[in-house]
Amino acid sequence: MGVEIERKFLLQNSDWKSLEDGSELVGVRFRQGYIPTEGFTTVRVRIEGDVAKLTVKGKNTGLSRAEFEYTIPVADANDMLGNLCTKPLIEKTRYCRDEAGLKWEIDVFEGDNTGLVVAEVELESEHQQIELPAWIGQEVSGDARYYNVSLVTNPYRNWSEQKL
Amino acid sequence: MGVEIERKFLLQNSDWKSLEDGSELVGVRFRQGYIPTEGFTTVRVRIEGDVAKLTVKGKNTGLSRAEFEYTIPVADANDMLGNLCTKPLIEKTRYCRDEAGLKWEIDVFEGDNTGLVVAEVELESEHQQIELPAWIGQEVSGDARYYNVSLVTNPYRNWSEQKL
Repeated sequence: MGVEIERKFLLQNSDWKSLEDGSELVGVRFRQGYIPTEGFTTVRVRIEGDVAKLTVKGKNTGLSRAEFEYTIPVADANDMLGNLCTKPLIEKTRYCRDEAGLKWEIDVFEGDNTGLVVAEVELESEHQQIELPAWIGQEVSGDARYYNVSLVTNPYRNWSEQKL
Repeated sequence: MGVEIERKFLLQNSDWKSLEDGSELVGVRFRQGYIPTEGFTTVRVRIEGDVAKLTVKGKNTGLSRAEFEYTIPVADANDMLGNLCTKPLIEKTRYCRDEAGLKWEIDVFEGDNTGLVVAEVELESEHQQIELPAWIGQEVSGDARYYNVSLVTNPYRNWSEQKL
């Protein structure tokens, strides 16, 4: 088991996409879904690029969450996404950027969540002090609307109060 | 993905336990639980002997069911059984017996399901003809009460009409 400790933010602008040498970050396509569960445990099926994973996550407690993740065959993931997961699936492109010793993951959502861009950073401990890049905006850690599992049933396009 | 095609039976007597050479079958202890799901998909965590598995199963259609099974660390399974699975857990001992070219699995339940003994046989196709051993009793394939996931919430000790 791992414990995932992370903070989540909206973005100020799209400066995160430009690297210092003038080039642009290259992203990886994610397609993921959730097997319908009761309570707070989620069971996620994800294909990221050409790798597939099955991930069980426990309840959020503060910024932390128990996480059990296993690599599985892509064909299995496709079957589960097609036949067992709630629709619509989440589709997004993930960009990774190292900044001040931290690994930031910026997710640009598509489909019913088009317009939503979120940055996540994984921490060593809940109280770790971090330096926020200039392109980071409002923190949304703990706001359940931004959980990927919530974006299936209540996608960004339905939100009355647009956040970006 | 695999497709599990199986038939399930009660037992006539305990002759299944005695081998021809006069010795007795040796069983393997199973401890398993289910992450609470909605609908027909089940997510099972199982420790069998010293091996742990995470298994996602789709809806039963006739005798068949899509099955996705992965070996996981025993420590992960213990964490998930303790923290994420519905209680009580299912505890049973499984005995395997080859008979007329078929592999039979006989599960002897414990705890709240003490008294329940069930034999399963896995088939190549739904219409495969099989020879039933003399110790096989009533068929209960498709009777949802006998699904292991059902035995968590409605254990055998609560059944008003005892089947054995």
